[in-house]
Amino acid sequence: MSIKKNIAILGSTGSIGTQCLEIVDDNEDLNVVALSAGSNIELLYKQALKYKPEIVCIFAEDKKDALKEKLKETGIKVVAGMDGLMEVATVKSADIVLTSVVGMIGIKPTIAAINAGKDIALANKETLVCAGHIIMPLAKEKNVKILPVDSEHSAIFQSLNGENERTIDKILLTASGGPFRGYTREQMQNVKLEDALNHPNWSMGKKITIDSSTMVNKGLEVMEAKWLFGVEIDDIEVVIQPQSLIHSMVQFVDGAIIAQLGTPDMRLPIQYALFYPERRFLKGDRVDFKTLKSIEFDTPDLENFKGLKLALDAGRKGGNIPTAFNAANELAVKLFIEGKIKYLDIVDLIEYAMNNIDFIDNPDVDEIIECENRVYEMIYEKI
Amino acid sequence: MSIKKNIAILGSTGSIGTQCLEIVDDNEDLNVVALSAGSNIELLYKQALKYKPEIVCIFAEDKKDALKEKLKETGIKVVAGMDGLMEVATVKSADIVLTSVVGMIGIKPTIAAINAGKDIALANKETLVCAGHIIMPLAKEKNVKILPVDSEHSAIFQSLNGENERTIDKILLTASGGPFRGYTREQMQNVKLEDALNHPNWSMGKKITIDSSTMVNKGLEVMEAKWLFGVEIDDIEVVIQPQSLIHSMVQFVDGAIIAQLGTPDMRLPIQYALFYPERRFLKGDRVDFKTLKSIEFDTPDLENFKGLKLALDAGRKGGNIPTAFNAANELAVKLFIEGKIKYLDIVDLIEYAMNNIDFIDNPDVDEIIECENRVYEMIYEKI
Repeated sequence: MSIKKNIAILGSTGSIGTQCLEIVDDNEDLNVVALSAGSNIELLYKQALKYKPEIVCIFAEDKKDALKEKLKETGIKVVAGMDGLMEVATVKSADIVLTSVVGMIGIKPTIAAINAGKDIALANKETLVCAGHIIMPLAKEKNVKILPVDSEHSAIFQSLNGENERTIDKILLTASGGPFRGYTREQMQNVKLEDALNHPNWSMGKKITIDSSTMVNKGLEVMEAKWLFGVEIDDIEVVIQPQSLIHSMVQFVDGAIIAQLGTPDMRLPIQYALFYPERRFLKGDRVDFKTLKSIEFDTPDLENFKGLKLALDAGRKGGNIPTAFNAANELAVKLFIEGKIKYLDIVDLIEYAMNNIDFIDNPDVDEIIECENRVYEMIYEKI
Repeated sequence: MSIKKNIAILGSTGSIGTQCLEIVDDNEDLNVVALSAGSNIELLYKQALKYKPEIVCIFAEDKKDALKEKLKETGIKVVAGMDGLMEVATVKSADIVLTSVVGMIGIKPTIAAINAGKDIALANKETLVCAGHIIMPLAKEKNVKILPVDSEHSAIFQSLNGENERTIDKILLTASGGPFRGYTREQMQNVKLEDALNHPNWSMGKKITIDSSTMVNKGLEVMEAKWLFGVEIDDIEVVIQPQSLIHSMVQFVDGAIIAQLGTPDMRLPIQYALFYPERRFLKGDRVDFKTLKSIEFDTPDLENFKGLKLALDAGRKGGNIPTAFNAANELAVKLFIEGKIKYLDIVDLIEYAMNNIDFIDNPDVDEIIECENRVYEMIYEKI
């Protein structure tokens, strides 16, 4: 009999959360002890019945009573809001916390989970983008692992397996380029929501799919990689690999490049994080070199995809500028989904926020949250 | 001050040997204690003056006196022949022995070096092809490292760094396909020596360059990989990658592929073996993803490149069949270089030897050498 690994999932009804549960289904020694969702109580209810966690959290507080009523016979504790999310993140029995909530609400629960000594399977990139300077030293102090779940960061993490990080020459972070690769800004002027949601390779949540189309997502990943792997922004080169077969690479001081390849399947990085350093069988498609003719490359277009250029600037400036970048993007994407702004406004609003926020070096969590709110105000005033 | 690492080089005047000495030139903590060459006393003499080893061996016994005379003022011991090679392989002060001699004469010195507790930087593939069943258990028993120097095996070794070998799904061994990729046997009928020596990517010794053109070299590498990484022949897939940028890959049970890429430069695997597990700066070209448009793939043509197919058969059969394969190839390539047989005869003679040798399971070193001699006789009788 193997020892069970107890998992708490923040964001269990999203794309990463549901794929994590597929992996739980295939591995008897994984055990779900806590679940949380934003507002999807129907799915959270079904997951609670199936996985029998100790505790579930519905972030939308107005849905707490309805969920409590549905689960009243089960003995499962029902909590809500940020306090509830913190309770899920720190539940005593959990060994590892998967943080797959979208956006900056991930920061506080992640810090709480680290303080509680949990390993973190990190799928919430805003946490490191905005608070990497707080998270990474804290994780080191508490001796917990930060295990990346993004396919690119997992690929870098896998490529660094067994290597000394001090011998990194540069990180080659790959990007598909998204559905608008090769477009000029002019051609992107009238992009509709459904066009932006049509990613060529990956099936993901709405927000990240739009972020991929603007390459803001790649920018966030560069900032995240800086913290995860202890390198400078200018040690990270974005390489366009349209097929998403090479998930990223690391070049070392001797010129050797180690790369991780695979079919585009998020279950791989999720499973790798859950069992690290062990690899387990994962059913699914394999890359077939008998039919693959070539792996293509291209260079990123920083002029027409200003979101990536702004992210590199934000990462170099540091302080609260990455938070301004991210907060502006979060709100702008929401407004674009709601049809309130045009596609190119997303990146223009990011630039506006970065240029107009007061700089704070080394912000603490409260200052990060304040900066987020200030950016929201600025954007609402502006539009 | 760092501790010096003492190296003995078997085959110091060849392509690998001279490139190893370039690395010695760039790393103060490498120290050459022994050198050996086949017959090139001029270069061996120069190397001896420059690197001041304790001992040098000239394999051609008739050149021993001349070399001794040249080096008489230096205090460097001069030896010759197989006994001399064994002395160089076991010199007391050496920490690591680079075996870059060509052909089956590498087997006995390698075994002697392992018995003397030396780590082996293995550039002599015949050693494992013919005697892998002896070498690998012996290395384990003596607790010495077998560090591959071939670019492909080094790439696999690098890709396995930090990984559990039991989670290998398959090894993807890359091949350039050589100068005659896409040719039919008919088109190869009148291949001249200079055509076969014209490798598209790698600058190597004569014998290995011809072996690359017939894909016999790739076949030997498959057999070598079987022993080095403890897999079956059918767990190794040969993938044609004409640019020689991906040096090989490993696919794991979860579907993840780890690959090592780089410009074609043998100094990288040599240096990696010398300093393993440490990576050091190596001057030289880097892969440039800003200009690289694609990495191409193709499938090996086992019909027209029968040498590869025969190697897979030999590897599956085991016993002394890989020795028959290799011995026939060694002699046939020599005869082709001397203009005594035609290009396609090389592979036909390999097939003839494999089909006509008496099978011996689990041959000892003497039986391997006997098998080699028997194959030579068979071929001389035949032609």
